[in-house]
Amino acid sequence: MRQNQFQIRVNWGDTDKAGIVYYPNYFKWFDIAGHQFFRSAGLSPAELADKQQIILPLLDARCTFEKPLYYDDIITIKTRVEEIHRKTIKLSHEVYRDEERTGYGYELRGWVKEEDGKIFAVPIPDEVKDLLLKEREKENLSVNPWLSA
Amino acid sequence: MRQNQFQIRVNWGDTDKAGIVYYPNYFKWFDIAGHQFFRSAGLSPAELADKQQIILPLLDARCTFEKPLYYDDIITIKTRVEEIHRKTIKLSHEVYRDEERTGYGYELRGWVKEEDGKIFAVPIPDEVKDLLLKEREKENLSVNPWLSA
Amino acid sequence: MRQNQFQIRVNWGDTDKAGIVYYPNYFKWFDIAGHQFFRSAGLSPAELADKQQIILPLLDARCTFEKPLYYDDIITIKTRVEEIHRKTIKLSHEVYRDEERTGYGYELRGWVKEEDGKIFAVPIPDEVKDLLLKEREKENLSVNPWLSA
Amino acid sequence: MRQNQFQIRVNWGDTDKAGIVYYPNYFKWFDIAGHQFFRSAGLSPAELADKQQIILPLLDARCTFEKPLYYDDIITIKTRVEEIHRKTIKLSHEVYRDEERTGYGYELRGWVKEEDGKIFAVPIPDEVKDLLLKEREKENLSVNPWLSA
Repeated sequence: MRQNQFQIRVNWGDTDKAGIVYYPNYFKWFDIAGHQFFRSAGLSPAELADKQQIILPLLDARCTFEKPLYYDDIITIKTRVEEIHRKTIKLSHEVYRDEERTGYGYELRGWVKEEDGKIFAVPIPDEVKDLLLKEREKENLSVNPWLSA
Repeated sequence: MRQNQFQIRVNWGDTDKAGIVYYPNYFKWFDIAGHQFFRSAGLSPAELADKQQIILPLLDARCTFEKPLYYDDIITIKTRVEEIHRKTIKLSHEVYRDEERTGYGYELRGWVKEEDGKIFAVPIPDEVKDLLLKEREKENLSVNPWLSA
Repeated sequence: MRQNQFQIRVNWGDTDKAGIVYYPNYFKWFDIAGHQFFRSAGLSPAELADKQQIILPLLDARCTFEKPLYYDDIITIKTRVEEIHRKTIKLSHEVYRDEERTGYGYELRGWVKEEDGKIFAVPIPDEVKDLLLKEREKENLSVNPWLSA
Repeated sequence: MRQNQFQIRVNWGDTDKAGIVYYPNYFKWFDIAGHQFFRSAGLSPAELADKQQIILPLLDARCTFEKPLYYDDIITIKTRVEEIHRKTIKLSHEVYRDEERTGYGYELRGWVKEEDGKIFAVPIPDEVKDLLLKEREKENLSVNPWLSA
């Protein structure tokens, strides 16, 4: 199945008074990594919405927290397609600091059309399924140079 | 000039690893208090948008930080009209913990119409100006009972 | 089992360009409602940390999204103890707009002591278990007067 | 004076129901760009805190909004030292989408020492002033390769 990774820094504002990451930020990162995953597959959410009136609303999300994350940690979010159903896609996300996984979870998203002010789930087209099932040949850079000082 | 106050609790997620409030949250509170101010004046932003296609975008915002705020502090945001111009409104906001002011600032908002996908500033109607200039007779409750445990 | 409810408004900043609530905010509300639940049981997280060095870190969180939420919606988050284990507590949260449930989920939190810069799970004291198992006699106000304009 | 730039994408969660960026996010970006500025000057805020007990709290912040920003816009935040006083530093921030400036403002930060649980402003050391006054020889990459799909 197709996968992607995205690297970001834990910013000051992501922490709380315990000195570790405030947990809802994991879901913010899942959302960012999910959008980046679709972009990397040629399925830009902005274009899906503008050209095909397709949106990808959340149906279910979960995260298991394994290790605390701290300010200035550089994390890699590894995203891959876990399941494709007729009208839904399940993305798994894993968060790593170097080799250590600090948390993991998933997002279940619908493939939904907006028409005449109404929204309804529609079948995922075969060409989209093919894109999502295929392994990637070219990998991302392994380090984001903009995160080094 | 018209004024309003709104009381909220500093939540866990509003703090950062220094154990105090992460400063962009002051602007989140200004935005919440600004919307509540318009609501309290009978100018619900939701209705302005739906019925009159009027939105109130930010042109300028500033905050001066005087004292740190901590988790569980209950704060009162005092909002009043500071200036009304032909097409803009300046709201001042002051944040208090009990009698102590911890920060203050302002939001400058435009009175803007959306029409045929375009937006342009329009003159603030006289009846809106009258509403905003008038002192209020009935005051808010001074304590929000939902914030006590 | 003990329960509590908390009422808040969907603020402008909680929405995204689809015009509905950005989903990580559900977890922000779960966190706020969880803290308020402990406060309402006489187990203020601020006091637990200061007096007993007890913190309540997240181990797992999940949310299922049923209906979209919109700007200005007033929502009630109903929180109750779902399970108490030796060193963990599972809180369930349900989000309602009037009578309609828009989403539900849980937080699994550890009962964790901080000592000499280390943290480790400790057994939940019996008197805390008793507090959490007991039904409440006095209910919350059903409407937060500070949310009406 | 020293300067730095940082490039990020406008994420889905940064927008609001008007389809544009929710304005407090500008201050979140100012904070991120300010931390990155200090990092780029060899003054990592994490190390300043750990090794010298120096923190950089906000005293004042302001932003003027010129153009709306949209989902998926890639923005460059240009940060430079605007003023150095005895115990404070003023950073200016400008936000650009390609060649177009969409907003600008500043952060005024104190140079503050934490000792025995107290905090107090202290004079900025001369070697820090020198670092901040010097023009940079080596410029950042002009494009962040991780933001392209």
